[in-house]
Amino acid sequence: MSYVSDFKWTPNMNVKELVEKLGLIGFQSVKLNNASNVIVKMKKNSAKIFLTFTSNMVTSGLRGFFAQLIKLKIADVIVTTVGGLEEDIMKATGEKFVIGRFESDDVELHEQGVNRVGNLLIKNESYMNFEDRVMPILKKLYKKKKRWAVSEMLREIGLMLKDENSILYQAAKNKVPIFCPAITDGALGFHLYLFQQKHPDFIIDVVKDFGNILFTTSQDEKKGVIALGGSISKHHAILCTLLHGGAEYAVYITTAHKTSGSMSGATTNEAKSWGKVKDDSDVSTVIGDATIMFPLVMIKSLEQLKEEKLLKK
Amino acid sequence: MSYVSDFKWTPNMNVKELVEKLGLIGFQSVKLNNASNVIVKMKKNSAKIFLTFTSNMVTSGLRGFFAQLIKLKIADVIVTTVGGLEEDIMKATGEKFVIGRFESDDVELHEQGVNRVGNLLIKNESYMNFEDRVMPILKKLYKKKKRWAVSEMLREIGLMLKDENSILYQAAKNKVPIFCPAITDGALGFHLYLFQQKHPDFIIDVVKDFGNILFTTSQDEKKGVIALGGSISKHHAILCTLLHGGAEYAVYITTAHKTSGSMSGATTNEAKSWGKVKDDSDVSTVIGDATIMFPLVMIKSLEQLKEEKLLKK
Amino acid sequence: MSYVSDFKWTPNMNVKELVEKLGLIGFQSVKLNNASNVIVKMKKNSAKIFLTFTSNMVTSGLRGFFAQLIKLKIADVIVTTVGGLEEDIMKATGEKFVIGRFESDDVELHEQGVNRVGNLLIKNESYMNFEDRVMPILKKLYKKKKRWAVSEMLREIGLMLKDENSILYQAAKNKVPIFCPAITDGALGFHLYLFQQKHPDFIIDVVKDFGNILFTTSQDEKKGVIALGGSISKHHAILCTLLHGGAEYAVYITTAHKTSGSMSGATTNEAKSWGKVKDDSDVSTVIGDATIMFPLVMIKSLEQLKEEKLLKK
Amino acid sequence: MSYVSDFKWTPNMNVKELVEKLGLIGFQSVKLNNASNVIVKMKKNSAKIFLTFTSNMVTSGLRGFFAQLIKLKIADVIVTTVGGLEEDIMKATGEKFVIGRFESDDVELHEQGVNRVGNLLIKNESYMNFEDRVMPILKKLYKKKKRWAVSEMLREIGLMLKDENSILYQAAKNKVPIFCPAITDGALGFHLYLFQQKHPDFIIDVVKDFGNILFTTSQDEKKGVIALGGSISKHHAILCTLLHGGAEYAVYITTAHKTSGSMSGATTNEAKSWGKVKDDSDVSTVIGDATIMFPLVMIKSLEQLKEEKLLKK
Repeated sequence: MSYVSDFKWTPNMNVKELVEKLGLIGFQSVKLNNASNVIVKMKKNSAKIFLTFTSNMVTSGLRGFFAQLIKLKIADVIVTTVGGLEEDIMKATGEKFVIGRFESDDVELHEQGVNRVGNLLIKNESYMNFEDRVMPILKKLYKKKKRWAVSEMLREIGLMLKDENSILYQAAKNKVPIFCPAITDGALGFHLYLFQQKHPDFIIDVVKDFGNILFTTSQDEKKGVIALGGSISKHHAILCTLLHGGAEYAVYITTAHKTSGSMSGATTNEAKSWGKVKDDSDVSTVIGDATIMFPLVMIKSLEQLKEEKLLKK
Repeated sequence: MSYVSDFKWTPNMNVKELVEKLGLIGFQSVKLNNASNVIVKMKKNSAKIFLTFTSNMVTSGLRGFFAQLIKLKIADVIVTTVGGLEEDIMKATGEKFVIGRFESDDVELHEQGVNRVGNLLIKNESYMNFEDRVMPILKKLYKKKKRWAVSEMLREIGLMLKDENSILYQAAKNKVPIFCPAITDGALGFHLYLFQQKHPDFIIDVVKDFGNILFTTSQDEKKGVIALGGSISKHHAILCTLLHGGAEYAVYITTAHKTSGSMSGATTNEAKSWGKVKDDSDVSTVIGDATIMFPLVMIKSLEQLKEEKLLKK
Repeated sequence: MSYVSDFKWTPNMNVKELVEKLGLIGFQSVKLNNASNVIVKMKKNSAKIFLTFTSNMVTSGLRGFFAQLIKLKIADVIVTTVGGLEEDIMKATGEKFVIGRFESDDVELHEQGVNRVGNLLIKNESYMNFEDRVMPILKKLYKKKKRWAVSEMLREIGLMLKDENSILYQAAKNKVPIFCPAITDGALGFHLYLFQQKHPDFIIDVVKDFGNILFTTSQDEKKGVIALGGSISKHHAILCTLLHGGAEYAVYITTAHKTSGSMSGATTNEAKSWGKVKDDSDVSTVIGDATIMFPLVMIKSLEQLKEEKLLKK
Repeated sequence: MSYVSDFKWTPNMNVKELVEKLGLIGFQSVKLNNASNVIVKMKKNSAKIFLTFTSNMVTSGLRGFFAQLIKLKIADVIVTTVGGLEEDIMKATGEKFVIGRFESDDVELHEQGVNRVGNLLIKNESYMNFEDRVMPILKKLYKKKKRWAVSEMLREIGLMLKDENSILYQAAKNKVPIFCPAITDGALGFHLYLFQQKHPDFIIDVVKDFGNILFTTSQDEKKGVIALGGSISKHHAILCTLLHGGAEYAVYITTAHKTSGSMSGATTNEAKSWGKVKDDSDVSTVIGDATIMFPLVMIKSLEQLKEEKLLKK
């Protein structure tokens, strides 16, 4: 049993200390510290870790953090949506995104050729440059073979990038597969379509990739899910672990609430219905913006893993 | 300029009257009435209407309403996720879902072989029966041809069902295409995978389906989006209209907020940045649970369209 | 046990029929129908009903509905905040509020002397007229006596108004007390202060009013709480029923979630911890905007009470 | 113009560095860093700072942080609700609150005599001990004088406590007034009522306290509002600054959204409608749980103020 403890600032406080203290404040701060503990437990018990996130998090600066976590061998499997992967390629090839405002004049932005994702801005130009970069990539892929499972294609693309902060690059380099069940739901879908028009035998095999994600783990292995936001990224990782008897550990960070019955808002409590999770020490749902919550949760886990010499150099 | 008007109940009030009065109460009730007006405008101006929803809405009783709206020619194009389509098939083949509680004991449910989606319950048995039904369907499809675009496959499946309340059935019958960019993200994905293991030349062509959704409309046609919830369903419809110069009308109903920068929370204001939408009379974002908001919005539109003899018999 | 049931529109559907059907759709629609049933149960079992709402709901057109519910003897005790009471007086004396937009240019509004509450607009002029009206009222009150409990003062003010749609008027006429624990938190607070400067023996006795709310009910009486939104209005009603052993029935309608530990988000589940509430049939928390949810919930209850001849003429 | 910047963990990262980096990630993390900058600006420009919070934050461990901020002369005026002040007294007199779970069995808790506030637990015993402590305090107050403005009474109570972590104690010691417009909305209300029954000339003068808060500042002084959560605490502080021409700076941290038109969800954008705030560099609304957001925002401000030697020893 823990008691609520008065929080006090001490000069030069570091993040680990802060998160530990948050664990004794109350409400979501307690869940946040729990989440960090669950992640450490995942690593200590050698669980296979599925990290999932939505596209807008790659629009944000979390992108470099995801790449770092792959490099540090925190994540074993990535599941995400195609928008984020497109933007990872854009950033890896020099495009810059600007911090704007949620309350922008959208008509004005449109006239300037600027697209808004919350308070972040992407120029039309970045999309055009993306097109120029993606077409030669598709040609190279097609030369190698005609039929690609999604994760295999993403690995090839990753190998062509040269950016330490790129998710695709680090994943390819560290043999971490990236799954993207809705590969056509973005600009890439359009480019793939145009390419297939010229090369009708060019096939993206989503069915085969279902087998690929299934073979990333097994019934016998311990499994953990870290899901940021909802959407099919979260659902696909849960589906895979479910088919192997359920995950032992789960951390969800989301702004959605369970009251709408949506996937985004589904809590880790449901993880208990998977049958393997026994108690609260193995799951934590944190309500809040992942751009703040995830760095806090993860930094404390990283510091602790480092102390205990469980972090890959 | 409208004034806030004191709401008064009169006995036997009907839904149309209620929604009209809600339009003069304030906050989301005003947006709700606006949304209804925007939908009437879509129909009057012969816009091509994209209706999108997430899987959990098909788990709910909105499923029959979606089927009815297809039959009434309200929706011209459907975009959704695979979980809902699986459940549409389950319901069409006799499975029943139970109304439970959000606060269920999930460990107990698991022991009883029951899965929870918010406050709705689905038995494991329903999933097993689904498997028994889907395998013969895949065999039939494979006999016809080896390579299927997703929407073409869904149309074939719809034609095999015999349920007036089925989305797949009504869509097939009324030639309304259903797009599902992440067709493998569900039990169906697993069954497709098992089938492909035996028949390696069986291909689900997601790239071709990008062309199919593109050809549902054009630059010249007026376009409207009705998006319930977020996820790739919403994103995919917006993406398609965007590639044709943007939608003229948009109604979003969601529990998500724009503050997280997520697709679920993105507002219709952004529709203005698409360049075709001129003013507030053409867009409306309603914050709230679609299981309540959508019937309200839609019933008033239907009553009005009926009065003006714009409703298909 | 209820099954999820396919929703279908039938022409000219009335609100009661709609809400009954919502009860078989899923997610919040189920809770909404439950809430309506709980309110009917309150009346059938002759519970003392505490209706609480926040100021912004009086800014909205719900104001007339609250007045009607008092007239129909649905509410026995009202708890609210002072802003709403000020606006009830404004409206009763001819001020009109305008329906605007959530995304207004606030700098521009300021220059025009307009105040914004969400998407509703109140002119500075209305506040000035309020001042002109309130000062003579305070003089009259002071002539009668020097020390006023809040609810006694509000009753006197109600008697001075002549508007069927006024909450204060209907409450005074129907002997329904209005409690307002933070009577100074608004323009009225300023006017009371100015008046007290000239008449130092003028006292608003908030402590005495605590006794007044306590004596509205008793340990033996059945009690029900209908709380719209959170804040001290909700808290004060719960506090009063708690001191009498807890409420038997509770309906909360709110946009807040329990995850923040706030009063606004506290659920009716906690009502069970009060010790009198036995099961789910006696409580319901509905997540959603009260300007939509409350008319739906309440209209169905009113129609049902009318059918069963339990509604006061 | 700032660019989105890839976030990277470096070992032993401190909180100030983290918040600076969050400022370049996106979505709420950007707003959080802005909020911290606005608070530094308030202090640099010698604004009178109004700090407001809801009761549940005093239930949590933020209580000690509020006391520390008063001691460090960050807050000049406090506005809050009575529940928090009761709990501040409980904690100052030895009561301990326990960290529990949001999903507790509330019927069981009730049987154990335990009250739940989100995931925090308070024993009935603590309330009984509070009663024992409060009665002698009221007697002492009554001996001094019969008529008390709320803030004057709270100051006297603060002087009787001996706890460095107590809000009431630090406020009294540092001459920071605490305003509580709904002083009777809690257990204290009941005790005040019982006391007044025996001593009818005992008066809590809320009207006079409106004057007291008005005189804490002036038209000429720069003013800043830091509002955690909504409710009358936030409203009362805004009201006071409004009567002096509006605040120059505002930071709101809340889980509520503006879409409901509630006070909790009202944004700092409205601050612009007060007429003094010129641009975005002076206001920031952060969406999120204050138990996490406020320490982050405030620690960075404190570190920066310390570096610039603007922090009181």
